[in-house]
Amino acid sequence: MARSREGWQWSPNGTLQQGLPSIGVIQPPRNVGKTSEVFDVIVIGSGYTGLTAARDATTSGLKTLLLEGRDRIGGRTWSSNIDGYPFEMGGTWVHWFQPHVYRELSRYGMIDQLVHSTDYSKKHNFFSFATRSGRREMSHEEEDELFARAVQKFVNVDGNYGKTVMPFPFNAHWNKDVLQYANMSFADRIAQIQHDLSEDEQHAIESFALLCSGGTRDNSAFLDFLRWWAAGNYDYKTLLDTIIIFKLKCGQSGFAIRFFKEALETQNLAYAFNTAVSRVDGTGDVVRVLTKEGDEFQAKRVICTVPLNVLNKVDFNPPLNQAKREASALKHVNQCVKVHAEIKDPEMRSWSGVTYPNNKLVIGLADGTTPAGNTHCVFFGCDANHIHADENIQETLKAVKSFAPMDVERLVFHNWSKDEFAEGAWVWYRPGMEVKYLEGLRERQGAILFANSDWAAGGWRSFIDGAIQSGTEAALTVKEELLSRSPTSRL
Amino acid sequence: MARSREGWQWSPNGTLQQGLPSIGVIQPPRNVGKTSEVFDVIVIGSGYTGLTAARDATTSGLKTLLLEGRDRIGGRTWSSNIDGYPFEMGGTWVHWFQPHVYRELSRYGMIDQLVHSTDYSKKHNFFSFATRSGRREMSHEEEDELFARAVQKFVNVDGNYGKTVMPFPFNAHWNKDVLQYANMSFADRIAQIQHDLSEDEQHAIESFALLCSGGTRDNSAFLDFLRWWAAGNYDYKTLLDTIIIFKLKCGQSGFAIRFFKEALETQNLAYAFNTAVSRVDGTGDVVRVLTKEGDEFQAKRVICTVPLNVLNKVDFNPPLNQAKREASALKHVNQCVKVHAEIKDPEMRSWSGVTYPNNKLVIGLADGTTPAGNTHCVFFGCDANHIHADENIQETLKAVKSFAPMDVERLVFHNWSKDEFAEGAWVWYRPGMEVKYLEGLRERQGAILFANSDWAAGGWRSFIDGAIQSGTEAALTVKEELLSRSPTSRL
Repeated sequence: MARSREGWQWSPNGTLQQGLPSIGVIQPPRNVGKTSEVFDVIVIGSGYTGLTAARDATTSGLKTLLLEGRDRIGGRTWSSNIDGYPFEMGGTWVHWFQPHVYRELSRYGMIDQLVHSTDYSKKHNFFSFATRSGRREMSHEEEDELFARAVQKFVNVDGNYGKTVMPFPFNAHWNKDVLQYANMSFADRIAQIQHDLSEDEQHAIESFALLCSGGTRDNSAFLDFLRWWAAGNYDYKTLLDTIIIFKLKCGQSGFAIRFFKEALETQNLAYAFNTAVSRVDGTGDVVRVLTKEGDEFQAKRVICTVPLNVLNKVDFNPPLNQAKREASALKHVNQCVKVHAEIKDPEMRSWSGVTYPNNKLVIGLADGTTPAGNTHCVFFGCDANHIHADENIQETLKAVKSFAPMDVERLVFHNWSKDEFAEGAWVWYRPGMEVKYLEGLRERQGAILFANSDWAAGGWRSFIDGAIQSGTEAALTVKEELLSRSPTSRL
Repeated sequence: MARSREGWQWSPNGTLQQGLPSIGVIQPPRNVGKTSEVFDVIVIGSGYTGLTAARDATTSGLKTLLLEGRDRIGGRTWSSNIDGYPFEMGGTWVHWFQPHVYRELSRYGMIDQLVHSTDYSKKHNFFSFATRSGRREMSHEEEDELFARAVQKFVNVDGNYGKTVMPFPFNAHWNKDVLQYANMSFADRIAQIQHDLSEDEQHAIESFALLCSGGTRDNSAFLDFLRWWAAGNYDYKTLLDTIIIFKLKCGQSGFAIRFFKEALETQNLAYAFNTAVSRVDGTGDVVRVLTKEGDEFQAKRVICTVPLNVLNKVDFNPPLNQAKREASALKHVNQCVKVHAEIKDPEMRSWSGVTYPNNKLVIGLADGTTPAGNTHCVFFGCDANHIHADENIQETLKAVKSFAPMDVERLVFHNWSKDEFAEGAWVWYRPGMEVKYLEGLRERQGAILFANSDWAAGGWRSFIDGAIQSGTEAALTVKEELLSRSPTSRL
C-alpha cells in the first residue's frame, strides 16, 4: 500500500514517524501534463465534496480535471491501514439518517461495511469521569443519563427541545424564531441555564459540546449545536448513533476510492495530485487555474472545494466576495485534536471517559480491537487547552493516561491545526458567522462555484454528508449549464 | 394540465367521474416509433424505480427506452392537482431519514417543498376512537401515548424494542436471530402479547399495523412491521414522522417529473406511454421486448420494474425463476383503500381518528386545507373489511362519516386493487415470503434486471425511498457493464 506523507505514528520502541500508508494515495500521482485543453470543469480539491463533484461531472460526460495539493484523496477524511486495521485520521462515523452519505454507501453496495464502534461486552465496561471534583467511574447507563439530561437542558430553548424553533434540520432557518440564537456562544447558553445545572451536568455539556465544536466555550456558536441536535432527531442517543457509533470496516479511504475509481473509469477524468492551486482567474472567457508549480489549466467552470480556513490562501480574480474574505480571515473555530491509541488491554474495549477541564484531551472512547488483540481507543481535544501531538509526545501520552491507567503500544494521529490545506477540522462557526456569512459563502462568482461541507445547506453541514451534498449540487449545476439543450444559459 | 384516465372524483352536485388532472401525464405520449435500434437499456415502468433507472442511465450516456402502460409517470405514487391543491393518490410522505428520496429532494433543490400534514392549531383538535366499546374522543397526546404503548408491546420481542434483533434496518437480517419471526403474522404476535394488552391497546395496534400493511391480521408479516419500526428509529413518534407527517407542497408528481425531465434533457431518452409490455425475451443476443400492441423493441439490457402482484402478467422467456413465479402468484397482501375527502369545516384541520374493526375505513386524518378553505382529510382502509370506493360511493361516504360528523364536499381516490399495473398498494409480505422469496425476487436473469421497491434491499422497502434505491442500483449495474473499459464483463 502506498504511503502518504501525512499523518504521524509513534510507538514506545520507535521514534515519532511522519507519513502513513493509505489506500487513498493515488498512483501515479497525475495523468495530465501541460495542456492547452479547455476542460469542461476543474474541481479543486479531492475531499468528499470534490470527489462527488468530479464523479458526477465525469459520469455526465463532462471533461473534468481534478487538482489536489495532497498526495491522497479524502481531504479531512482519510484512513490509514496499519497491519490491516483502519485508523480514521479525520471524518469517521456515518449513519443511515445521513441521506447523502448513506445513498452513496447503498449505491456502492457497502451497507455490510457498517460496524459498531461500541462494544459493551468486555470487562472494563464503564465510563471514567474526571472533573474539577476528582475522578470517578460510572456505568454507561449512568453516563448516558447524565449527558442526556445535560444536553437536553442545553438545547431546550423553546420548551420543546428545539423542535419548535428548528423543525426542519435541513432548512434550519425555516422558523425565523431560531435567529434569536444567532449570536449565542456555548458560554452564553450555559450562563442562561447555569442555575439549573449541577456541576456534573455542566462538565458533561461543556465536554460534549466542545467535542462537537473543537473550539472553546466562548468562540463556538450555539446555533451549530442546535442543528446537530435537530439532525440527530432531537434526542441524545440518536445524536450519538448518528455522529459517533457506526463506522466502516474498510475505513473511509475504502469508501472515498470508489468515487475516484468511478470517475476514472469514464475516461473523462484528468487529475493531478501534489498540485496546489495558487490562483483562480475568472475574468476571461474561460477560467484559468494556476498551480504553485506554475502550470496553468483552463476550464469553462471551476468547482472550488477549498475549505473555509484556507480559502484566502488562494488568489482569486475577481477577488472573493466580502463574505468569503471576512469569514475565511476570521476562520471557523474547530481545532480538534484527534489521537488514536493502541492499548495493550483487550478488556478496555468497553471503556469511555471524559477528563475536563484540566486535561489536554477531553473525551476518549474505545473504538475497536486491533489485529494484535489490543484495544483501539480514540481521544479528542479541542482549542481550549490545545495540544500539538507531534510536538510533544510525552505530554500527549500523559493526556491519554489521565483518563485511566493505560499501557500505550502505539499513537496514530494527523495534526489538522497545522495542515496547510485545512488549518482545522470539520466546520464550526463562531457566534454570528452563520447568519452573516453563510449565504455569501455559498454564492457562486461567475463561472466559479464554491462547494464544501463548511457551507453546505443541509442538516449535516460539517459532516461527510454535507460534503457529498455540496459536491452533488455543484456538479448538477455545472452539468445543467454545460449540457443544457435550452438556448438560455443560467449563468 | 393534462388529464390522466386514472383516479376518481365525486362531488355531491355531480356524479362519479373517472380520470383526474395530473402534471405527471406526459404529452406527447411517445417520442419513439417503430425502430430496429438496439437500445442500451429498456426500462419497463415509470414509477420512481423506473424513473430513477432511466435518469441515471440516460445521464450516463446510455441510450434508453422507457416503456409505460399508463398515460403518466409515478406508478403507485402520483398526485392530482385539483384547483391548485395536490391530492396524493398513492405514495405521499417523505422524511430526511429516508436517504435515497431525501438525497433526490436535496439535489433538485426541493427541500423547501416540505410541509407538515399535521396542524394542531384548529378547534377540532382531537382524536376520535370508535371501537367495539363505542366511540370517544381523546387528545392527540392521549392518542400518541396509547398508540406508542401498544406499538412498543407489539415490537418488543427482545426486551430492547427490536434494536437487538434488528440493529441495522438497511441490513435487516444482520442478526440472524430475527429470522425466528419470519413466519409470524400480526395475529400470531398479538396472540403472544394478548395477556398484556388492554382492549384499547389491541384496537390501537391492530388498526395501526393494518394501516401499515393494508392486509389482514392473518396475512400480514410481522417482520415487515419490525423493519418499518427499526427504520423509524425504534420509536413511535419518529415512525410517524417518517411515514405520515411530511409531504410535498407541489405534490409527488411535481417531484417525479424532475427525474423525467432530467432524463429527457440528455436526448438519450426514448419513451412510450400507453404502451404495456406483454413479453420479454432474453434468449437471444439482445433482449426483445414486445408490447400488447405488437411493437417490438430491442436492447442490450432490460430493467423490469413491474410490481410483484402483476409480474406474472408479463410473459418472460426464459421464464421467471421459481421465486418470482411463486411470489407473484401468491401476491403481497396490501389492498390499501385510500380516500381523500374535502370537508366543509375548516376547524377539522386538527382532527384524526380510528374506527376499528367495524368500519370499512380504519384510520383518518386531516392532511391539509384546500384553496376553498375546506379541510382535506385522508382515510385508509385495508383488505380486512375491504371496499371498492368506486363501486359504492354511498357506502364510502358512510364509512367516512362513521369517524365523525362531516359535511363531505368531494371525494378523490384511486382504486389500487383494481389497478391493472399494480393490483395493490405498497408491498407488504405474507408471513414467510421475505425469507423464502426476497433473494430470488432480487436476482437478475441474464440481461434482465428486476428492480422495484417491492424487493428493495434497504430499510425503506415498500416506500418511495426503496424505489429510488432499487432504480439507482439497477442503473449502476447496467452502466458498469455497458460502459466498463475492462475486458471482463460482469454478466
